[in-house]
Amino acid sequence: MIRFQRYLPILDWGSRYDRETATSDLVAAVIVTIMLIPQSLAYALLAGLPPEVGLYASILPLVAYAIFGTSRALAVGPVAVVSLMTASAVGEFAQQGTPEYLGAAIVLAFVSGLMLVLMGLFRLGFLANLLSHPVISGFITASGLLIASSQLKHLLGVPAHGHTLYDIVLSIVSHLNEVNWITFAIGFSATGFLFWVRKSLKKMLLGIGLKPFLADILTKAGPVAAVAATTILSAAFELGERGVRIVGDIPSGLPVPQLPSFDSDLWLAMAGPALLISVIGFVESVSVAQTLAAKKRQRIEPDQELVGLGASNIASAVSGGYPVTGGFARSVVNFDAGAATPAAGAFTAVGIALATLFLTPLLTFLPQATLAATIIVAVLSLVDFGAIRRTYAYSKSDFAAMAATILVTLFFGVEQGVVTGVGLSIALYLYRSSRPHTAIVGIVPGTEHFRNVDRHKVITGDSVLTLRVDESLFFANSRYLEDRVYALVAENPDIDHVVLMCPAVNAVDASALESLEEINLRLSDSDVTFHLSEVKGPVMDRLKRTDFLDHLTGQVFLSQYDALCALDPLTAHIAESRTPKKPARSAVWSGPEI
Amino acid sequence: MIRFQRYLPILDWGSRYDRETATSDLVAAVIVTIMLIPQSLAYALLAGLPPEVGLYASILPLVAYAIFGTSRALAVGPVAVVSLMTASAVGEFAQQGTPEYLGAAIVLAFVSGLMLVLMGLFRLGFLANLLSHPVISGFITASGLLIASSQLKHLLGVPAHGHTLYDIVLSIVSHLNEVNWITFAIGFSATGFLFWVRKSLKKMLLGIGLKPFLADILTKAGPVAAVAATTILSAAFELGERGVRIVGDIPSGLPVPQLPSFDSDLWLAMAGPALLISVIGFVESVSVAQTLAAKKRQRIEPDQELVGLGASNIASAVSGGYPVTGGFARSVVNFDAGAATPAAGAFTAVGIALATLFLTPLLTFLPQATLAATIIVAVLSLVDFGAIRRTYAYSKSDFAAMAATILVTLFFGVEQGVVTGVGLSIALYLYRSSRPHTAIVGIVPGTEHFRNVDRHKVITGDSVLTLRVDESLFFANSRYLEDRVYALVAENPDIDHVVLMCPAVNAVDASALESLEEINLRLSDSDVTFHLSEVKGPVMDRLKRTDFLDHLTGQVFLSQYDALCALDPLTAHIAESRTPKKPARSAVWSGPEI
Repeated sequence: MIRFQRYLPILDWGSRYDRETATSDLVAAVIVTIMLIPQSLAYALLAGLPPEVGLYASILPLVAYAIFGTSRALAVGPVAVVSLMTASAVGEFAQQGTPEYLGAAIVLAFVSGLMLVLMGLFRLGFLANLLSHPVISGFITASGLLIASSQLKHLLGVPAHGHTLYDIVLSIVSHLNEVNWITFAIGFSATGFLFWVRKSLKKMLLGIGLKPFLADILTKAGPVAAVAATTILSAAFELGERGVRIVGDIPSGLPVPQLPSFDSDLWLAMAGPALLISVIGFVESVSVAQTLAAKKRQRIEPDQELVGLGASNIASAVSGGYPVTGGFARSVVNFDAGAATPAAGAFTAVGIALATLFLTPLLTFLPQATLAATIIVAVLSLVDFGAIRRTYAYSKSDFAAMAATILVTLFFGVEQGVVTGVGLSIALYLYRSSRPHTAIVGIVPGTEHFRNVDRHKVITGDSVLTLRVDESLFFANSRYLEDRVYALVAENPDIDHVVLMCPAVNAVDASALESLEEINLRLSDSDVTFHLSEVKGPVMDRLKRTDFLDHLTGQVFLSQYDALCALDPLTAHIAESRTPKKPARSAVWSGPEI
Repeated sequence: MIRFQRYLPILDWGSRYDRETATSDLVAAVIVTIMLIPQSLAYALLAGLPPEVGLYASILPLVAYAIFGTSRALAVGPVAVVSLMTASAVGEFAQQGTPEYLGAAIVLAFVSGLMLVLMGLFRLGFLANLLSHPVISGFITASGLLIASSQLKHLLGVPAHGHTLYDIVLSIVSHLNEVNWITFAIGFSATGFLFWVRKSLKKMLLGIGLKPFLADILTKAGPVAAVAATTILSAAFELGERGVRIVGDIPSGLPVPQLPSFDSDLWLAMAGPALLISVIGFVESVSVAQTLAAKKRQRIEPDQELVGLGASNIASAVSGGYPVTGGFARSVVNFDAGAATPAAGAFTAVGIALATLFLTPLLTFLPQATLAATIIVAVLSLVDFGAIRRTYAYSKSDFAAMAATILVTLFFGVEQGVVTGVGLSIALYLYRSSRPHTAIVGIVPGTEHFRNVDRHKVITGDSVLTLRVDESLFFANSRYLEDRVYALVAENPDIDHVVLMCPAVNAVDASALESLEEINLRLSDSDVTFHLSEVKGPVMDRLKRTDFLDHLTGQVFLSQYDALCALDPLTAHIAESRTPKKPARSAVWSGPEI
């Protein structure tokens, strides 16, 4: 039963569901439904798919998440970045507007769903950790810029294509003489209106005395107003006849469940993009879910979230939708509107289903420029130049990974961008780890403490050299340690003992063990004895399982002070006889010094 | 001038060269020359190249290394593993025995040489650190098995082909009815003789009173004896006419310097294998060089070694040779024979050049089976099953990387094996790093020290939770830390303060900083205050460059004891009033506990 509950969180909250919770959930569902209708249409457009596909992707996936997801407030559905990635992946394979294009998007959702479920069952959620914050942030900023630029064509009413900034801009510029000025007027006034709504409406509403909650809801309904107004305008003046691209007939009725294509070439082609979409979508979703859960001291289970998102994507695929994930804005709205359980999502699904059944005829005259405007306004909030500046100030290597992600995403493509960012951050991390911080230490006079000779007034003898290493030892840094020790021995011909002080060594892998054996062997060739000090318990346990300690020419000292007393009693004695300059207290706390 | 000396080590030792050093070097050179002649022929055979190519690869490369290398005793030339990798890489591209095959091997050496020089100039030697010891050891063991099995065909006198164990064995078995029994007799007696020489001759010679040095040299000359004996046999009985494959006419005369092909397709095809050969060759060579340098308290410069090996490979390519690197056995012989400077290598080159000019006619009748025997005996010493067992006992994850390397190398190919091993060890390392060791700590009664609550009798209060994290924080583990903190807060509804104790945190990257900000924000949403304690100096300096400390709901305490006194004075007081159970001394040394 406990096992069931782990994989079916609905059994947990469902058993305690009551009328009060249901009311909260219903209110939240109504608000999210209103918000989700224009978003679903717009993101389908962004993904290069017919508008109804966006609606389909907002029905069954929400039900699936309600059953399998662990977040109480996460609202899944089509989102901007995943829609862009879908367009990029599927665009490689088929032409927009063809049945192959739709089929590939469905397969993409299905494969991505399977991968997410498998990652969840095998508890591979940690893979998402490989996406560092700067890489994600850079990728989302770059995606936002790409999306906004790709929507410009709808605002101008010109044809354009391409998946990189260069292609898109070039394509738009080459068609600038074909601008449709009515589209232009609708597009830019909708954009201006939506920016105004986002920036000033809430403040204004609060100013005229509305309650914050209501002001918030009205602000979020801005896109609905823009959709309604421009649709009426478009219908009244028959703008479709005047070259304004409108959404056109949307097949009403619910999607018919069907299996995706099982063409192996298509699956193979979609496997790489599906993996990236899965991981990016998961990271985006799980961070939203965690933020909201923390506000109520609740928890989400990252591995079960993978299952929930995977089920959503499979549900999307079998109902003719495309890849979905948890969206930030809609989840916050859901949370603020009082969603108490995942049932709110299921109610939202009913709302969208009703809209699909009855509202679609009303949307025929909706200009695509309005949808493009809602996308542009939504994604420009994703663009965070401040994060670039902050990252630059904080860490140059994080900045390098971020800059590479942004540039490669913008100029080579979204998949390339993610892969470059992840690869570079792993490479930079390994590079840093391969040069661990080490320090030659001496004893602080009048104490039993040892400090870096370069930073502190300490005493060292000629015959004993103590090297403290401040990192776990593993394959990428073990050779560095060897080099460092050999160089020190070559530079200091008088020494008889080398002590490796290991208070910060949490692990020693097989490569590092071999390096320690090599150091021991080579030092003994040079008639230098090799000792260890302050080895942690688990590391010592592991070393005892090998014959390293039998071959060690020196000893393992419990403390560095023991080592000094045994190997160089004279220096220990001199150190003891001197009074410390600082009060002893400050030396005890090794905190702010290295 | 100093800069010149860095890139031209010859300027350093050359200026102090004298008659005594020259004598030592000359003696060593004579011995290494004798050893290198059969080896060069044999490894060329293993690489699928004409025998003279092995000799060419043992002339100019040695001179180039003498100029650019830093090791006093390293002997470069064709080696077993690199020859196997050459055969595998070039075999993909051309048929053995064709001019294209030789041309591709030459290009491989040239590209590999360029890469090594560039890696040296850009100080990319650390890339070799990505090859963990278990991966290298597994790769070399698997290569040894592959090489030995591939040489079986020469011992049996049957045709065979393939680059994986399965293909090779299948191919040999399918030709078992064609075994040439004279070849078989020569091959197996040579193998038996060489094993006996390696195993028992030295002991026997020492037993009859020879000096160890001479006994050693005679033992190393075993292959020369086998070559001489079987060549005479083969010439006397005209075994070539009886189906025994002999080396045949070797063009005498020195190689004519020439540029390699600049066919861009060929360069592209060779780039991947060249990179792997470069890195593997470098790792093999640099570990030999370091071992020998340490015996005399000398140093080698890994980055300059890259330049030296690169120059050797370029020299090999322009003189019609194939990829070379520093060999283990020959370097040890060189060292033991008294080589004092890289000039010994240059003298060896003269020796091989003389052999190429005058000895080659004598080698016409040498049976290939003899060369195969020398290869088999040499490579089986590379096979180290003990290392597999030791690695298994020491670390399961290192063993996993090792086992994958061995199996993939044996059954899919050498390049795939290396790539799999490196990829898997990086993945496993990141996986381990993504789950850092953390511990909830409490105060040890009667002291100001804090220990893991699960391992020690310590005191904790209800309102303060202290989590110590024992690793640097970076992108792969920052989300784990978040999860851990949120889970603890969800499990302990009474707490008001969370203290993150950071004595082992050497770095906090931008992702981890954002996680700390998230933790701070989410804890404040749950009305929990977030504090840090024992933050190291460099980490603190970096945090001060951000606005994190301005937003931190709690404080940064110099010591954990300060934190407890400030946040939970009652618990601090209780702890103070109790006497410690152990003497205070043992608690001071945090060494063997975590």
